[in-house]
Amino acid sequence: MRLVALAALGALAACQMITATAEPPASPADKEAAILETANTLAAAGSWDNTGLQFVEDLTTEIGPRLAGSPDEKRARDWAVAKLTEMGFANVHVEDFTVPYWKRTHETARVVGASAQPLIITALGGSAPTPAGGLEADVVRFELMADLQAADDAAVAGKIVFIDEFMTRTQTGAGYGLAVAKRAACPKVAAAKGAVACLIRSVGTDHFRRPHTGGIDRRGPDGVAKPMGPIPAAALSAPDADQLARLLARGPVSVNLDIGVETAEAAPSGNVIAEIEGTTRKDEIVLLGCHLDSWDLGTGAIDDGAGCGIVVGAAKLIDGLPEQPERTIRVVLYGSEEIGLFGGDAYARQHADELDKHVLAAESDHGASYIWQFQTKFGDGALDYAKKIQGVLARYGVAAGDNLSGGGPDIGVLARSGVPVVTPAQDGWDYFDYHHTPDDTFDKIEPDAFRQNVSVYAAFAYIAAESGWDFRKPADLAE
Amino acid sequence: MRLVALAALGALAACQMITATAEPPASPADKEAAILETANTLAAAGSWDNTGLQFVEDLTTEIGPRLAGSPDEKRARDWAVAKLTEMGFANVHVEDFTVPYWKRTHETARVVGASAQPLIITALGGSAPTPAGGLEADVVRFELMADLQAADDAAVAGKIVFIDEFMTRTQTGAGYGLAVAKRAACPKVAAAKGAVACLIRSVGTDHFRRPHTGGIDRRGPDGVAKPMGPIPAAALSAPDADQLARLLARGPVSVNLDIGVETAEAAPSGNVIAEIEGTTRKDEIVLLGCHLDSWDLGTGAIDDGAGCGIVVGAAKLIDGLPEQPERTIRVVLYGSEEIGLFGGDAYARQHADELDKHVLAAESDHGASYIWQFQTKFGDGALDYAKKIQGVLARYGVAAGDNLSGGGPDIGVLARSGVPVVTPAQDGWDYFDYHHTPDDTFDKIEPDAFRQNVSVYAAFAYIAAESGWDFRKPADLAE
Repeated sequence: MRLVALAALGALAACQMITATAEPPASPADKEAAILETANTLAAAGSWDNTGLQFVEDLTTEIGPRLAGSPDEKRARDWAVAKLTEMGFANVHVEDFTVPYWKRTHETARVVGASAQPLIITALGGSAPTPAGGLEADVVRFELMADLQAADDAAVAGKIVFIDEFMTRTQTGAGYGLAVAKRAACPKVAAAKGAVACLIRSVGTDHFRRPHTGGIDRRGPDGVAKPMGPIPAAALSAPDADQLARLLARGPVSVNLDIGVETAEAAPSGNVIAEIEGTTRKDEIVLLGCHLDSWDLGTGAIDDGAGCGIVVGAAKLIDGLPEQPERTIRVVLYGSEEIGLFGGDAYARQHADELDKHVLAAESDHGASYIWQFQTKFGDGALDYAKKIQGVLARYGVAAGDNLSGGGPDIGVLARSGVPVVTPAQDGWDYFDYHHTPDDTFDKIEPDAFRQNVSVYAAFAYIAAESGWDFRKPADLAE
Repeated sequence: MRLVALAALGALAACQMITATAEPPASPADKEAAILETANTLAAAGSWDNTGLQFVEDLTTEIGPRLAGSPDEKRARDWAVAKLTEMGFANVHVEDFTVPYWKRTHETARVVGASAQPLIITALGGSAPTPAGGLEADVVRFELMADLQAADDAAVAGKIVFIDEFMTRTQTGAGYGLAVAKRAACPKVAAAKGAVACLIRSVGTDHFRRPHTGGIDRRGPDGVAKPMGPIPAAALSAPDADQLARLLARGPVSVNLDIGVETAEAAPSGNVIAEIEGTTRKDEIVLLGCHLDSWDLGTGAIDDGAGCGIVVGAAKLIDGLPEQPERTIRVVLYGSEEIGLFGGDAYARQHADELDKHVLAAESDHGASYIWQFQTKFGDGALDYAKKIQGVLARYGVAAGDNLSGGGPDIGVLARSGVPVVTPAQDGWDYFDYHHTPDDTFDKIEPDAFRQNVSVYAAFAYIAAESGWDFRKPADLAE
């Protein structure tokens, strides 16, 4: 879609802002009321502002897939720098780092013998290649990852391990953490028992024949991530996993597996940074994160172009206010999240000396569906601030959550360093139908839900940046 | 799924049959009442009989894809002969013919230039190959097939034509006939104007990134089908068509298209025949058809393993009666339907001398969803028979249809020769989400709906075979 009438709507939003903030507040209580009112006005403007959505459309259309460490990811960084500069953000720049690089070149699988037929696979990120022409071996099926772990080496040696474990569909995405264990661990565990390759039922909740990729554990004995793991590893779509299970129920099955990869020890990646500079507390930072890289199969629309569109769109709304907030709002488009949170780690390392100046961090990386809950991880003396923010968000359908937020993938390292974080939790009911597949494309974003995200991010980020509140405040300092 | 307790259910069904048919009827009216009652009992038994469903599961699992003219289709014929013989059908055999053969070997497409990215395509059946390494050309988009037809040669020459025409979702499948025109005609029309290749938006109603294949018009000037058409031709998935349209809205787009094919002038195919021999009117034939071949991408579950499972399951139910019907029930698993109705034409040719003995024909080839309407094409004096059959089917949710049935793809030639035909019309609302894609797999069959089909086929086929009714009867002979 092409989004029209954007400029006109933006102008209208700006007018409303002016109304809401033109009179300077007379007291702390008045100031707080004015902040919450402006936050609500920002959120209302987000409901019909398409700046963020256009950002995702442009990114996913003009760049497409953005594999970590690839020339495509570099194109995306250059594109983002140009775009964010053009949008008027301050201090737009890239912070470089390097990552181990892995890329698929080809992947096929076929059942051989009396029921010869193709199986549709996708190599997992970090898969080793097969020998040229493929490897052929009998398949041994395990219903659960735990069954492989419990298996005798003799049952596995020389075979292709097939882990058929299902994933549960949930609103929170809770099923993912459980199901992903087989994806991460299969190659190492199977290789240790002498298997020649791993096949897994896709980590996903759909029934379509385009499997879900995703990373495996490719750390060496030294704990450092290498470009690839010990043996070839691929995901089967759910119908293909069903088919393989049915064939195995009828008798022994041999599969030919042919996977090619390219790797490099160190490839360039980077985080793209853009800011709205604070006025009176410029060194205090409200961080809004997402990741710019994507898997290679789709165009990275819901994972995580949407997250970037949401935080950029929200920041741009705030930037449209007549007066910018006291604290700096820093948008971070992380690089190389998918292959092991490299961008998050690099940021924490490169900004170690100012982490105590990060007053709040949030990351959008769970699709583009609506936010149903707002979790925090604040000091016990700051829980009243959480309630005030949740009070604004309630009218956008957001329920109050607990104080157990872990942040998000790339900001988890900040949370563990004591930076207060929030999780505006997106509904994940159908997220894992598309996640890490070719179908992670722009058409899967529902515009109304996307804009609700922009509303929520604009509201809480503005409150955090303008209020001066200390979200670390311990219990004994509570008001 | 593995279907259990089938033998026990079959035995129960047989007992019910005995009850329904043990007493010979005393008068024509009594006989008719007994026939309709037995038909209803057969239909009730079909509601919980899984013989047909197991047939589809076995075919799609043990054989998989069955491309017309391929060794896979030959394996399927051998499998079907063995299976139908084992099931106790009479006169199980293959009737051979040859077809022009086409098979894809590889297919890739990618946007080149500043927005370089892959596009997901599937070659259309009968596509010409590209030169080795692919061809690269600018893309010219037409919103409708009619726009291409109206275009000047100069706008098309040297370019890749992209027809972006949408398909309408309908219960009847009416949108298919309209949308398929672009698939069939694009290569010839575009080639005549000097285009180097055709891309079309998939003929389908879904939004998933596995495009729909299907045949193009590959008849030569002599009207005879050749293995392939004049230029390369491929379908884009809907998200890829959207992406290409968005890119073209931003400026010129060049695409590299690389398609490889294998062809042969004549490859072996055949129809598989199985019968329940009639008792007193053995030479009169009630034909129940489906097609055994499938496209290469899926396992041909809804197109048309389901159709074969439905007619085989229905025939097997009738075969379980204590006494077989007066007329012969002939099950025909047609070969090479997908590439141009070769099996239907071969059957009509090979059985030309007994077409007048075909008292009724039906074909199941519109998926596996429930039957919502029962159409006929009977002589005007036989419409009362249609009402009587529809009376039995009404309790299975089937509405009466008109008398304008065209039969089905492979039996259309019989209908045009004057053979009475019926169309038990299946709901096609989501059929074209899966049709001709890799997702035409067993999991897409809804067992309850499938069994309703078996019920309907068993009921009307039994009535046609046992009643002695003349469905050709002209109006002036109406009772």
